[in-house]
This record gives sequence, C-alpha cells and structure tokens, in this order.
Amino acid sequence: MASATTAAGTPGQRAHDTARLLVSCADGPGIVAAITTFLADRGANIITSDQYSTDPEGGRFFMRLVFHLPGVGGALGELREAFDREVAAPRGMRFHVNDAAVPKRVAVMVSRYDHCLLDLLWRTRRGELDMEIGLVVSNWPDLAAEVERFGVPYEHVPVTKETKPQAEERELELMGGGAFDLIVLARYMQVLSSDFLDRIGTPIINIHHSFLPAFAGAGPYERAKERGVKLIGATAHYVTEDLDEGPIIEQDVIRVSHRDSAEDLTRMGADIERQVLNRAVKWHCEDRILVHGNSTVVF
Amino acid sequence: MASATTAAGTPGQRAHDTARLLVSCADGPGIVAAITTFLADRGANIITSDQYSTDPEGGRFFMRLVFHLPGVGGALGELREAFDREVAAPRGMRFHVNDAAVPKRVAVMVSRYDHCLLDLLWRTRRGELDMEIGLVVSNWPDLAAEVERFGVPYEHVPVTKETKPQAEERELELMGGGAFDLIVLARYMQVLSSDFLDRIGTPIINIHHSFLPAFAGAGPYERAKERGVKLIGATAHYVTEDLDEGPIIEQDVIRVSHRDSAEDLTRMGADIERQVLNRAVKWHCEDRILVHGNSTVVF
Amino acid sequence: MASATTAAGTPGQRAHDTARLLVSCADGPGIVAAITTFLADRGANIITSDQYSTDPEGGRFFMRLVFHLPGVGGALGELREAFDREVAAPRGMRFHVNDAAVPKRVAVMVSRYDHCLLDLLWRTRRGELDMEIGLVVSNWPDLAAEVERFGVPYEHVPVTKETKPQAEERELELMGGGAFDLIVLARYMQVLSSDFLDRIGTPIINIHHSFLPAFAGAGPYERAKERGVKLIGATAHYVTEDLDEGPIIEQDVIRVSHRDSAEDLTRMGADIERQVLNRAVKWHCEDRILVHGNSTVVF
Amino acid sequence: MASATTAAGTPGQRAHDTARLLVSCADGPGIVAAITTFLADRGANIITSDQYSTDPEGGRFFMRLVFHLPGVGGALGELREAFDREVAAPRGMRFHVNDAAVPKRVAVMVSRYDHCLLDLLWRTRRGELDMEIGLVVSNWPDLAAEVERFGVPYEHVPVTKETKPQAEERELELMGGGAFDLIVLARYMQVLSSDFLDRIGTPIINIHHSFLPAFAGAGPYERAKERGVKLIGATAHYVTEDLDEGPIIEQDVIRVSHRDSAEDLTRMGADIERQVLNRAVKWHCEDRILVHGNSTVVF
Repeated sequence: MASATTAAGTPGQRAHDTARLLVSCADGPGIVAAITTFLADRGANIITSDQYSTDPEGGRFFMRLVFHLPGVGGALGELREAFDREVAAPRGMRFHVNDAAVPKRVAVMVSRYDHCLLDLLWRTRRGELDMEIGLVVSNWPDLAAEVERFGVPYEHVPVTKETKPQAEERELELMGGGAFDLIVLARYMQVLSSDFLDRIGTPIINIHHSFLPAFAGAGPYERAKERGVKLIGATAHYVTEDLDEGPIIEQDVIRVSHRDSAEDLTRMGADIERQVLNRAVKWHCEDRILVHGNSTVVF
Repeated sequence: MASATTAAGTPGQRAHDTARLLVSCADGPGIVAAITTFLADRGANIITSDQYSTDPEGGRFFMRLVFHLPGVGGALGELREAFDREVAAPRGMRFHVNDAAVPKRVAVMVSRYDHCLLDLLWRTRRGELDMEIGLVVSNWPDLAAEVERFGVPYEHVPVTKETKPQAEERELELMGGGAFDLIVLARYMQVLSSDFLDRIGTPIINIHHSFLPAFAGAGPYERAKERGVKLIGATAHYVTEDLDEGPIIEQDVIRVSHRDSAEDLTRMGADIERQVLNRAVKWHCEDRILVHGNSTVVF
Repeated sequence: MASATTAAGTPGQRAHDTARLLVSCADGPGIVAAITTFLADRGANIITSDQYSTDPEGGRFFMRLVFHLPGVGGALGELREAFDREVAAPRGMRFHVNDAAVPKRVAVMVSRYDHCLLDLLWRTRRGELDMEIGLVVSNWPDLAAEVERFGVPYEHVPVTKETKPQAEERELELMGGGAFDLIVLARYMQVLSSDFLDRIGTPIINIHHSFLPAFAGAGPYERAKERGVKLIGATAHYVTEDLDEGPIIEQDVIRVSHRDSAEDLTRMGADIERQVLNRAVKWHCEDRILVHGNSTVVF
Repeated sequence: MASATTAAGTPGQRAHDTARLLVSCADGPGIVAAITTFLADRGANIITSDQYSTDPEGGRFFMRLVFHLPGVGGALGELREAFDREVAAPRGMRFHVNDAAVPKRVAVMVSRYDHCLLDLLWRTRRGELDMEIGLVVSNWPDLAAEVERFGVPYEHVPVTKETKPQAEERELELMGGGAFDLIVLARYMQVLSSDFLDRIGTPIINIHHSFLPAFAGAGPYERAKERGVKLIGATAHYVTEDLDEGPIIEQDVIRVSHRDSAEDLTRMGADIERQVLNRAVKWHCEDRILVHGNSTVVF
C-alpha cells in the first residue's frame, strides 16, 4: 500500500481486513507499547500511526492507528471488547475502532447555493470521498433535480419562523436515530436549535464563508469588502450550540484586491468554501479527527 | 527598463529622469486623456500606468503613472504647478508627483523584538527597498548595537505610564516636522496617543501579528492557539486613532497545526510579519498606495 | 461598476455599451495619450486600463482598456476603422476591439477524464465565465450523457493511428471556419498535428498536468512521485506546434508529501488542473491576455 | 511539552532527558510493538511518534520516535547496544538514536550572496535552529566581517580551475573527519567533486534557486524569465554526485508576473531560497529526515 492517505479505506479496498483505531486518554508512560502490543499479539500489522500529546506530563494523549488484520471487519465487536478490557478501561481511555472498508453514511443539508453540495456529490461519485450520500435535505426545492441525477433522494423541508419546530421534528425523523454517521451543512442558511443539536446524536460539519474568528455571523463577504482585507477565507467546523464557535477542522484563504467587489469575493470564496469543506469531510470520513476541547487534532 | 516593479526608483536609477504621479478624484469621462495628454505635450513617456474606479458612474477614480522625462527631477515644482492649473484644479483632483530617484526618508520605532527591524535594515542595505533609514527610536535600549552596525542612529526613549506625554514630545522632536516621509512601527509595543498622531504629520505603518480583523488587540498568538485556528497571519496597516482599525495594506498567512504551541506560532508568525511589513513598506516607498476611506488601493 | 474584474462583460451586463481594446506596438512617447484622446473625443469613459512595456526605450508596449460608450456594440466596425486610421496604422499597432457584452463561443475537446470539462460546464452555467460552450468533441463516447445534461452537443470523433488524418478533418469541419473563438483542451489526450494547428485559425488553450517546464510529456504524476518533489502543479498554455512548449498563461501548485502515492497526486492534481484551466479560460474570454513571443502578458 | 515541533531539542531543553530514534527496515508485523515495548520496559515515555510504510506487504518501514527518559543523554551508548541486540539486529533494522539536547555542529559554505547565510546565522542566534554554526568556508573573502560579528570563524579558500584539488584538500581538512554533523551550501557556486563527496563523510544540504527538476543547472532565474513561467521556486536537497539530482527535502514557490524582470525574480527568489533552506536545515537538525532511494521521508 503506497500511501497513508489511501491506506485506510479508499473505495476499492473492500476486503474488510483494515481497521482504524482512535484513542484519547491522559498521557503517561507505556500507552503506545500497551496498544501496539495488543495489536501485535493478534497478528495485526500497523500501517499508519499518528500520535500527539498536549504535554507528556499531565497532558492529554491522542492516537490514530490504521492496522491490517485479515478478517478484522467481521470481528470488530470481539476486538472492541478485548481492547476495552485489556487496554482501555484500565487507563480510562476513550476509543473508537472502525472497519475501514465501510464508508460513512452522510446526509447533506443545503439551501440554494449549489457549489458545495455539487462538489460533494461529484467527488463522492468519483470515489474521492470514503462515504455514501444517503439524503439531501433542503429548505428550498431548487436543487432537487440536480441531486436526483446522482441517485440521491432530496427532501424539501421548508422552514419559517413559525414552523421551525415542526421542520426540525421532520429533520430529526429523516436524519436522526443513528441513520447517518455525519451531517454536512453545505451552505445551509438556517440556524439549528439547541434542541435539535441535543437530539440528533450525530456529528455535524458546517462550512462558514469567512476565515473565523473574523467575520462570524451574517454577510462575511460584504463585511470583508468593507474592511478592505487582502485575503478572504472559509472555515469548516463542527457545529455546537455557539454559532460559528465550534471546533475548527480546516481553513484556507485566497488573495483578493481592491478591484474585487463583494460579488467577486462571493464567487472567489465559493471555490475556497468547497475545497475547505471537501477536506474536512474527507478527514472526518477517514477517522482522522479528534476533538480536544474546542480544538481539533487532525492526523 | 525591463519591469514595472523596478521601473520607478530602484537605487541604481538616480538620473532624476523618472517621476511618479498619484491621482484621485470623482470619476468621469476624459480624465485619463487629460492627464496623459498633459504628459505627452511635455514629451514624457509613460512607463507604467494603473487605474481603478470604484464606479464609473458617481464613483471615485484612482491612478498611478510612472513616466520618463529627462530632467524631471529638477523641474518638479514647475510641473506640479502646471498640472494643478491645467488638469487637477478644474477637476477637483488630489495628486502627488515625486521624483523616483529620491528615496524615502524613514524612521523606525521598535521595542525588543528584532526580526522586523533587522529585516528592514538588511533589505535596505541590499538595495531592495527604495528608502533610507535615518533613525531608529525604541522604548528599550536592547537593540542599539545591532542598529548602529548599520550606521543608523538609535534613540532610546523610555515610556512609562507617567512619562508617556514627555516621551511623545521627545519622539515628535526626533521624528516630526517633516524630517521623515514615513514612520514604521516594527513591533513597537506602545499605543501612540491621538495627540501624537494629530501632530506627527507623517504616515505611519504598523505590523499587527494577526490576520485582522481576527485577534485585534493583545496576545494574538495565544488567542489563535486557544481558538484552534489552522492558519495564522499578519497585517500591515496605516495607523489611525482606532487601534488595529486603520486601512489594511497587506496581509498574509501560514498554515499551523494542533502540534504547534503558542511559542511555535510566535516563531512562525515572525516570518510572516517581516514579509508582510516588508511588502507594505516597499509599496509605500514606491508610491503605490492610495488610501480610500478605510481601505487601500495598491497599484 | 464596482470592480475591474467584472467590469467588462459578466453575463448580466448585456447593454452593449462597454468594449475592450487590446493594443501592442513598439514603445515610444505619446502612445497612451493618442489612444486615450481618441476615446475621450468620442465621449468614452475609461473604466479600466492596464499597460506594460518591456522597455521604454526600444521595447514593446502592451495595453488593455475597457471603456464605456453608449451604443458601442452596434458601432464597432466604424470605431475599428477610425481607430486604425487615426491611431493604429500611423504607429504600426496591432489591436483588437471587442464588445464586452458578447460572450466568447467555445468548443471543448476532452478524452475520458471529466473533472476539467465538468468544471467548465458548471462554471459557465453559474455565469462565472464570459462564454458559451457550443460543442464538446471527444475521442471517447463516455461523457456524452453528462455533457448533454447541460444542453451542449457532444460529438464523438474516435482517433486511431490510422484514422487520425480523417479524424482531424472531421474536427476541422466541426470547429473550424471561425465557428468558435476559442478551443479548450480539457485533458484531451491526443496530440494535434501541425496541419490541424495551421488550419484551425482559432486559439487553443491546453491544460498540462505538471508545473512546466518540469515533467513535460507523458506521465507527469508518476514522474513527480519518482523524483520525490514536494509540490505538484498544473500549467495552462496556448498550444503551438512544440508540445508543452507554448506560451504559459497560468500555473499553480499544491503541497504533497512522501505519504502521497502517484494515485493521490493524480487526485490532488485534478483540483489544481481545473482551477488553473478555469482561470486561463476566464482571462482569455475577458480579453486579458496578450501573447509576447513565447510568453504572455496577463492584465 | 506543548508541541511535537519543539518536543525534541529546542535550545532551552538541555536536561539530556530526551532522545530521538530513527528507524528503517523491511516492513512486517510487530515492528512498532517491538520498538515501543523496548522503550516502555526502560520507563521511557514516547512524546512523538511518526511512521510510514511504502507498502505493508514487502515495503519499507520508516519511524521517528521522540521519547523522554531521565538521564538518557548519559546512557546513549548502552541504550544503542541494547536496542541493536534486542530489536534492530534480529530485524535487519538501520537506526540512529540521538540526544535531543545536543545541537548539531554545522559548517556553512558560501560564495558572495549573503541572504541564505545571514538568515541561518540570525536564526541560529535567535535559537530557532537546533544547531551551532562552527565555521563558514567561502571561495570569496567578501563576507568575513559579517560572519565574524556572529562570533563564527570564516575561512577563505579560493578556488580556481587549476587549484580546485588543493582547495578541496583544504576544505576536507577544515570540515572533514567528523568535525561537523552537517554541511550547508548556502548559495555556494562551486561544484564539489566526487572525490570530495566520497571523502567528506558528512551529509550536505544544498539550496538550488529553482523548482527542481525545472531549471536544473546554471541561470535558473534568467531561464524562468525566458520561459515565461508564472511561479518561481527554490529547492533544498541532499548533495549527491549527480548535480541538482539528490533527494529533495523541501521546495516552495512564489507567484511572479510578466512585469517582473530576471532581476526581480532574483530578488523575490532570494526570499524563497532562505525560507526553504531554513526549513530543510531545521528538519535535518531535529532528526526529521530519512532518505529513501532518491526521495526523502520528512516526519
């Protein structure tokens, strides 16, 4: 296998022989040895390993391992239990172990801008993203035909100030209950309520069209033009109850000049938005992201 | 002359045959023709011309021209007067015309961080910047020996809460009265008072160690680490009475990761700071910048 | 009009009141004045002006002007004739003047990779590119359905070693005779013959999947992996008889690491290819590019 | 310790309690477990771990570990022996283990351009690079005073076609015999002979002023201008007998335009050269680089 990037679950590799392990715990001596010995004893070969500690003394330890073990996909339950008993529980570790051959099930929420959504649909079809888009939910009907061409169902759930609670109930019906591994807000222009966030039980990634924390909130391109900045950006982050304040996954920028109007910024920014969102979603689907307080560790 | 960038006043070109004209006025038909005909009638050859209008109907027009005219350096007063009478006054234009062979006289203010200051001294010595550094003023004595190696006088003006008014008087003595064309704050950690800014009568460029408007104020690298951003930046701007709110000249960023501590951000950011400041100062010294409200037009 | 970028012919501006003038000639005094006076005398307001001289003494002069003149779209023939007589012919100028409200007619040639083609179709539909795609020609049938969804005809012209002359005849029938203003090779994997290039009479832009002149020819990503470079790139250039040697319009790069396989480079490079091609095509369609020997001047 | 970047040997950390282990061998199961168990058994706490395999089946395995072990600096010989016996020899591993508190001893070779040299001297003085510059060797006398200000000896070894063998003998005397851990060619304009390279026994890093493999050899900026590229770059690589063909460590680029002359490219490129060289030297001094064939693995 030539590359760590593709090591763990590009769509061609569907032999269920590769798994990914994410671990976090209080740092201390012997953690890496305990984990790798556990795997070596079962005949696993570690393909990729990344590790980070906020402070070797009293800090927090994070690790991502990708390992090859014939048949691991059919034996995850047993492996999980043994790892918990032998390694994780004694050290107070939090961990996940996933079959790298199982793509993530993703729902996308969108309003009327199509660029982020189309990019995700198109990259998924090309096999660039280790995921399946099972549903698109929108508060507008506009993009239905475009989405259905990709064989993906489109649910129009209108939202008004009055109907927002019912709309969110419908969204919970459509996307809740563990039906999806990830929800992506691909320029969804409604704020999700705390109640929705409490109940959905699924991580949500949003793309914000500015370089946060600059220009949080509405109209970032207009405000960027007004302030005369020389670079504009986009930010992908996990959604929390504090709008535009969740853990940042990825950011990027593009150079602009006095010649560019707010409309130009909107057009140029659209390119950055889709790239940044694509990277954040890709990393999430490859189990590369660990949340640490209000930050992310991206391996 | 092979390049617009060097067209107007790199140190080797000291024949006083090249001048730079900066113009701004309300937009309308015939402005470019009036200006270029004025120059053509005097036998000038336009080397570089840049132009921008915020809106051809009712907007503001900006222009920078570099032209070649044998002996122009000795005839600027006369040219200025004729241009004002024939072109500028009838149209309510604001304009400057400078001899490209005369480097800008610059004073630098600094505290204890040496990286921005050394970069300016070193680039000036190499002939990269069309300026002469005539004075360094610092509220600390630390960098005196380093500066004096470059043959530049160093004035230590200590500032405490109590002595600030007197300190600023001393700074005005040293740098006021038109002695300098530009003052550069190369990580000067004191806030200049409104009174000082009113009286100094010289443009001031500051380098702020964040991507403004994010992390305005103190401790930007610490706050960037805390917020978990994936890029850090620096911003060069003209100083106004509103701290960190003046017209932005240049910005740039560098990618960081969860592995980088606030100290790493400080070290990595230092590289961006000196590049961004260098570009802003270079453009100012080449008469490339026009201020438009709280933004800049950089030609 | 708020921006030079959009100043000249975004699809909304269809009033035929704006034109673009491109000029090149031997440099000398008075050229700018002659051109701008000609326009001012007709009541035109110059919106944008860019100019470059390789050397004010004995060099070559290049200029792009966008000007507003009510009704100019209906009077281009007359304007062209007057400009030639009064300004261009006496100075040996080459020039073009185009109605900014008339989008360029573009044909795209493609093989089996869809990413560059889809990006062009999609951006054209969104109104980001000042052009109309009138035809897609491919040596493979694969992308027909995808293209036809955009309402664009798709011609499958198979090419084998033996049938290449006939295939090129067919391509000349389809795209020659001035039917198009531009042909874009959006990852078209056949080499066009000198005969074809001589006869087509239309500028052709190609995207090459490396940072030229590195890795000219076949298999650039494989060779980049083998050489162990730390950045990969893409290059958009005008097609000449010397393969991968024509005037470069735009280039960009992306960072890669030892972890990335040749397949990863191919995937990551695809993103750069479509961005670089998009910019080159956009600039061509906005009349921003002048060829100078084997280089380009891009205003 | 807050960061992997600073984890291993910033100048402040001189307690000799941290070491770095670099390993390469044929890949296979159990390698990571064997290494980490060896360390855990001695009470070491792993601070940072990076790993890469070209192919889990039949590929080559690379690892870098930074670990904390009180007193390790005084016990490296013993540790090395035990690791060889228990872990490395049975698996045919190549490995190095270094005390992170011992800075690398570096000699710099330079001709007349000062920018790369000064940047290294200045960063070393600021504590940014985990090294000590013990000697500067130049075929020109020009930079002696500048270097001596930093307290570093400067040896002028003139080189002519006729005296090259004797000059290289003198250079071997000055820098050979294990006196240095690294030699940096900071724009040294002489080609080192195969004989010199065979005998010096020390890794050599060179900065080449182009984006290799484009513009290998002499005059890259002139050739870049002539070819009309839109980005220029610099490449740091290990020196081998094939000029400009050694393993690439780092590369970067900067955007240029038709307006920039070859002199401008030289000036702009100088900034990229010093940044790229700085990163390559920094990584080497932090034991982050493993050579794999003609490529590098940079952790």
